[in-house]
Amino acid sequence: MLTYAAFLQRHLVDNLKIVLVNTTHPGNIGSTARAMKTMGLRNLCLVKPKQFPHAKANELASGAHDILTETLIFDSLTEAIADCELVIGTSARVREIPMPELNPEQAASKAVNLAQTAKVAIVFGRESTGLLNDELALCHNHLIIPSHPDYMSLNLAAAVQVIAYECRLAILAKEQEEPLRVSEHDRFATAAEMEAFFQHLTSVLTKIEFFKPENPKRLLPRMRRLLNRFHLENMELRLLRGILSAIDKKLLREP
Amino acid sequence: MLTYAAFLQRHLVDNLKIVLVNTTHPGNIGSTARAMKTMGLRNLCLVKPKQFPHAKANELASGAHDILTETLIFDSLTEAIADCELVIGTSARVREIPMPELNPEQAASKAVNLAQTAKVAIVFGRESTGLLNDELALCHNHLIIPSHPDYMSLNLAAAVQVIAYECRLAILAKEQEEPLRVSEHDRFATAAEMEAFFQHLTSVLTKIEFFKPENPKRLLPRMRRLLNRFHLENMELRLLRGILSAIDKKLLREP
Repeated sequence: MLTYAAFLQRHLVDNLKIVLVNTTHPGNIGSTARAMKTMGLRNLCLVKPKQFPHAKANELASGAHDILTETLIFDSLTEAIADCELVIGTSARVREIPMPELNPEQAASKAVNLAQTAKVAIVFGRESTGLLNDELALCHNHLIIPSHPDYMSLNLAAAVQVIAYECRLAILAKEQEEPLRVSEHDRFATAAEMEAFFQHLTSVLTKIEFFKPENPKRLLPRMRRLLNRFHLENMELRLLRGILSAIDKKLLREP
Repeated sequence: MLTYAAFLQRHLVDNLKIVLVNTTHPGNIGSTARAMKTMGLRNLCLVKPKQFPHAKANELASGAHDILTETLIFDSLTEAIADCELVIGTSARVREIPMPELNPEQAASKAVNLAQTAKVAIVFGRESTGLLNDELALCHNHLIIPSHPDYMSLNLAAAVQVIAYECRLAILAKEQEEPLRVSEHDRFATAAEMEAFFQHLTSVLTKIEFFKPENPKRLLPRMRRLLNRFHLENMELRLLRGILSAIDKKLLREP
């Protein structure tokens, strides 16, 4: 029989992925693997790393080499998070289009809770410039590490260490809880389902001439932000797609 | 006049020292300085470092070079902590002679509280073997970072990053004792604005024949629940109304 703690270890940790986008220094990938393993995390995904695999990554991973062996590599962030129902993006600064902000404790708690039943990603950007606005727009929440305003530049693996530490605290707290009553809450839409919806929405907005591709302004990023902020359940997404299809049908019938 | 926050910055942070004992790799000293500075700490002391100053330390300190410049070097731990009223020693394992144990949050809270009025040291041991029993015996408390039993070997600077992060949270909590500055977030839509939007939406859904008044099912209550769950900002509501109006216009023009 599996204890609840063992169940959490196996499933929750599999569901919780750390995603590094466009990492420049392979040593940081190794240090990230080490930071993760010290806190019991193991699911590392890389989006277009500059150099990987690399001897420097292996060296700095130290005893966490097994995590590097199982690391998955993706061509785009969209692919890396496609199966995720919650995507949290780390960000050092306040953005043009702000999203709901979480501190590390809140982010870890939210991620660990949902990872009991669904895939969750916590995303870290480049060493130099972090995540781009387009990448942050794919996230439901922004995670801000409360660094000191005089010098906010955490090393990438150090940032992962702080978040992995908070995840470990959240997992330890969960282990103290009673096992989950199997919740019947509707599952959230995955990033891939949201993307398909967004494409449909864009096409309808174009047909009704609310969106003008020749003069796009900030409409699409704003709609993306709004939709991600809602963190739609799958049922809700299907309802909204039904509305888009009804508009499509109406427009076809009355040309 | 000095604000309370500025007072904390100046005095508390001066009083709180990070002590590294017998560090082997100068790169770890640089990374430690960086980890400290990102969390607003700046008082670094070294006990018999193997190599310091060193180019590798400067390189990994990145923007925290100023901390290395002011770093003090001691011949023994006893000298380094001589002026301290509280000494907390980090330790990965349970010791022969156990001391009162603190987790990172408790240690940071205790250290920051006392650092308002007295010198406090948090001590980190060698990369390979940590602190010796004789050194731990000089500490009032042992600090244990709750790493995963499968792999407990945090990199030295990563351990400092976790503790410095907890110190920053403790300092920020102290600063909350001062009146908060109010942030101006976008206001939310009023209930009346939401109701008007809902009426508009109902009319459009009827026109596109998605909603059939003669067979309403649960559509309207479900849409209401969905919209309220979103807790829309006023700007977002205006954006959504713009879309409804565009549909209206399109339907009028093409009857």
